[in-house]
Amino acid sequence: MAIEIERKFLLAQLPDLSETPGEIIVQGYVAKEPEAMTTRVRIRAEQAFITLKGPSNGLSRDEYEYPIPLRDAEEILGRYCRGRIVCKTRHLVDHAGMTWEIDVFAGRHAGLVVAEIELPAESHPLELPPWLGAEVTDDKRFGNFALAMIDGTPDSRWWLAEGLVPATQAACCCRYFGQLSCCEQASSDLAATETCG
Amino acid sequence: MAIEIERKFLLAQLPDLSETPGEIIVQGYVAKEPEAMTTRVRIRAEQAFITLKGPSNGLSRDEYEYPIPLRDAEEILGRYCRGRIVCKTRHLVDHAGMTWEIDVFAGRHAGLVVAEIELPAESHPLELPPWLGAEVTDDKRFGNFALAMIDGTPDSRWWLAEGLVPATQAACCCRYFGQLSCCEQASSDLAATETCG
Repeated sequence: MAIEIERKFLLAQLPDLSETPGEIIVQGYVAKEPEAMTTRVRIRAEQAFITLKGPSNGLSRDEYEYPIPLRDAEEILGRYCRGRIVCKTRHLVDHAGMTWEIDVFAGRHAGLVVAEIELPAESHPLELPPWLGAEVTDDKRFGNFALAMIDGTPDSRWWLAEGLVPATQAACCCRYFGQLSCCEQASSDLAATETCG
Repeated sequence: MAIEIERKFLLAQLPDLSETPGEIIVQGYVAKEPEAMTTRVRIRAEQAFITLKGPSNGLSRDEYEYPIPLRDAEEILGRYCRGRIVCKTRHLVDHAGMTWEIDVFAGRHAGLVVAEIELPAESHPLELPPWLGAEVTDDKRFGNFALAMIDGTPDSRWWLAEGLVPATQAACCCRYFGQLSCCEQASSDLAATETCG
């Protein structure tokens, strides 16, 4: 078991991502229950994992992750995670000796960009890059589980109404989910993503 | 991925189990959502597994199972499955070339005994042993997920009110869950199991 200690921020502006092509991440959740442990199935760079995460406790949460066959993950996501999938491209950006993860969301979540950092301890000192915006670690709306559950209607995309970040030309993950019509146009063309997920 | 094809029966009488000492199984569920995929963590004979199962489709359901470290399973069950644990002893009994699993439940589920058989195909011929009772394959109350969710009160133990099977001196699984007060007396003394789980 690992303990995940993480802080999450909005971006005031996008840092230069030209040196970090990014990895496409596709993940879904197989059962939902608030405040319980979540079961996530994730595909990242041709590798697949199943991850159990406990509820957050401050900045920390328990995490148990195991590799599984890629084919199993594709089946589970395709058959059992419809409407609860998150697609994003993760870019790694170094700053002051720490590696930040910039997640550019696609599909139903197009327009959303967040920066995350994993810390070795809750009290670990952290130098914030100048491109960071407000911290949203405690805002449960930004949790990937919560994001996975939105229904995809314009009203459910609260980050657009709040103007948190400009819509972004996000990477497409339809190579995995053509059958789900996910990310047909993962772009600022929201109409095209209405059926994603 | 495997497809689990299973039929489940009550017992008209207990077959001779003296030759099958049985294996203690302790399992729990990390999130509940009816009709969704379940995530089960199971310890059986010092080995641990995480299993994702899809909803039943006739006699069949999708099943994905992966071994995990025993210590992880003990942590997950102890921290995240309180009140949703099933403890049982599984005896294997051969009949007419097929192997039946006789599950003798303990703890909150003391008194419940069912026989299950896994089939290679839904249409596979099956000779029923004389000690079987009514088939309950389609009775969702007998699913282990449903059983895990009972609250442990006398009213929730419907199998006792219905007199389906006599209370059984079941094996104790408190070696794993002393801290949960599970199976303090996994016996016909129901009062002692009120707090199990």
